[in-house]
Amino acid sequence: MSKFRTIWTTADRFVEVIDQRLLPHQLVTVKLTTYKDAEIAIKDMAVRGAPLIGATAAYGIYLAVRELIEKQLDGSFLDTAFSDLRASRPTAVNLFWALDKMQQALDNCEADFLDTAWNMANQIVEEDVETCRMIGVHGLPFIEEISKKKKGEVVNILTHCNAGMLGCIEWGTITSPIYQAIEKGIKVHVWVDETRPRNQGSNLTCYELTRHNVPHTLIVDNAGGHLMQHGMVDMVIVGTDRTTRNGDVANKIGTYLKALAAKDNNIPFYVALPSTTLDMNMKSGFDIPIEERNQDEVKYMIGKSKATGEMDAVLICPETTNASNYGFDVTPAKYVTKIITERGACDASENGLLELFPEYR
Amino acid sequence: MSKFRTIWTTADRFVEVIDQRLLPHQLVTVKLTTYKDAEIAIKDMAVRGAPLIGATAAYGIYLAVRELIEKQLDGSFLDTAFSDLRASRPTAVNLFWALDKMQQALDNCEADFLDTAWNMANQIVEEDVETCRMIGVHGLPFIEEISKKKKGEVVNILTHCNAGMLGCIEWGTITSPIYQAIEKGIKVHVWVDETRPRNQGSNLTCYELTRHNVPHTLIVDNAGGHLMQHGMVDMVIVGTDRTTRNGDVANKIGTYLKALAAKDNNIPFYVALPSTTLDMNMKSGFDIPIEERNQDEVKYMIGKSKATGEMDAVLICPETTNASNYGFDVTPAKYVTKIITERGACDASENGLLELFPEYR
Repeated sequence: MSKFRTIWTTADRFVEVIDQRLLPHQLVTVKLTTYKDAEIAIKDMAVRGAPLIGATAAYGIYLAVRELIEKQLDGSFLDTAFSDLRASRPTAVNLFWALDKMQQALDNCEADFLDTAWNMANQIVEEDVETCRMIGVHGLPFIEEISKKKKGEVVNILTHCNAGMLGCIEWGTITSPIYQAIEKGIKVHVWVDETRPRNQGSNLTCYELTRHNVPHTLIVDNAGGHLMQHGMVDMVIVGTDRTTRNGDVANKIGTYLKALAAKDNNIPFYVALPSTTLDMNMKSGFDIPIEERNQDEVKYMIGKSKATGEMDAVLICPETTNASNYGFDVTPAKYVTKIITERGACDASENGLLELFPEYR
Repeated sequence: MSKFRTIWTTADRFVEVIDQRLLPHQLVTVKLTTYKDAEIAIKDMAVRGAPLIGATAAYGIYLAVRELIEKQLDGSFLDTAFSDLRASRPTAVNLFWALDKMQQALDNCEADFLDTAWNMANQIVEEDVETCRMIGVHGLPFIEEISKKKKGEVVNILTHCNAGMLGCIEWGTITSPIYQAIEKGIKVHVWVDETRPRNQGSNLTCYELTRHNVPHTLIVDNAGGHLMQHGMVDMVIVGTDRTTRNGDVANKIGTYLKALAAKDNNIPFYVALPSTTLDMNMKSGFDIPIEERNQDEVKYMIGKSKATGEMDAVLICPETTNASNYGFDVTPAKYVTKIITERGACDASENGLLELFPEYR
């Protein structure tokens, strides 16, 4: 399978990302040369997905250091960069983790300041690639098991939002076991929830599955329950933005509804995550603050106009109607069959997580 | 509350309807002066919703009789009108029911032919209005009860799709208890599921709630579970296309997911229906064939273009991606708190339904 990446460095040591807002209709890349570029890319969601946000923020700090040196600014500039980047997406725990790593590296810096920032940002990226690869290694057996039970017939996997490689650097979280299953010759078909309001499923997951030649079918978010009732789904696998100590998972709004339907129909519901999204200081998912986003994301739908062929937004309700736009919901641990991490799979519980991550005992 | 109707007669004894294809962006009314006008309004979906289609067809026959008399045509003209109207939406059961009623009235006509057609069409309309009004009478106590428990605070009601007056003549099914609650001074707020793929929630329910000054908020179909987890929904009420003998309800795709979330959060889940949608010959909801519709309804979203101000469709996935489009799902009776009909409310079970409708024993 020929793979690609979501963020990469250029020969002149700047950074490029895919402007994911234009996918799947246009593949446009954006060069980030200042920390503000990185902040805007995160804030405006040109980049999205916890690991990619973390990587972008890390390079953002590298770019701030470079600006500081090149423009001979004072140290407060770097403080501002840290606080601006920290504020760019309030729910993203990865963002804080990546920024903390950059801070530590700079605080302990004994060599060249700029090289330290550059190396640490690159290290964060390579660690993510390896983390995602290992999530695939540990998730693959669950797909293999179903494939064997079905005597090699197609394994139908439902997913919500995009926890694919587009949210990471390469492999992705939920897509890593899928891509590895396909590399092993296992037959897989993916039901892709469109994931309103921002359609990360139809825009991004469909895009990357198309590019990787993975058989898939787009469905509205309303359809998953019906498919599960009729034996058309063998497993559900989703990502998460934050997992709390008790195994509760916060993920894109609507995930909870799919977990309920999976439970009601005895279908396994897996959550794949890099351990960087674990928040072991938070006891339960219901302590997680849920981001409320702009109502226009609900009132308008974005896509490629049939009339003009250009990107456009269409209003789908009366002008005066108000919309509410919560970004995430929390799926209680009791609805999660297994949590799949780079260290292995475990029960969605404090004990389960502590077995894999004893450092949090 | 100042109410309006979806179909009404004019001083010169013609008929007018709202062209619902343009809602919520434009309110255009169409005068029907020939049976062909009625046929086209049904065929091109300017009118939709089973009761409204039936009423439009009934007036279509009245208009055919009027043409017959005024233009001194022979009797075969009326036969053609019947067969044209019967073919205008081949799957609409209400259409055949209304046309049969018109046929019987004309067959048994002892007085003036034109008056007979006029009176029967009006009667069909008024019967639907009364049915919907009575659904409200029987649904209202559930809202009143919550309002009392909350000491007069706002009652938050979540609904899916449009089971409002726009599919009927006046009152609607699920909106009837809501409108009656408001007339009694009860504070109500409605969470409106947009209802992908055709957005009947955002297009139609938001429109009629706006016109009736009912406080409401549009949400994506993914959001209801989160709202329910956080105490922001006091009750769910939906319509149904078909209810089977055991109390299972087939309704717009996605309804089942909301029923699961309501159950998980101990929120009452009501289904409002005119008894014409009962199918007491079918034992269980899982016998209902589920319509699969065109995939373009999923791949494209329709609305008013931000760029041009015109109605447009936008593509939301790669061109080559396939989509699946099941129109309905089935909510098992065990998740339905009460079924609300024009005769009263009952448990969602064979016994419950037979108490209200002993004629099916």
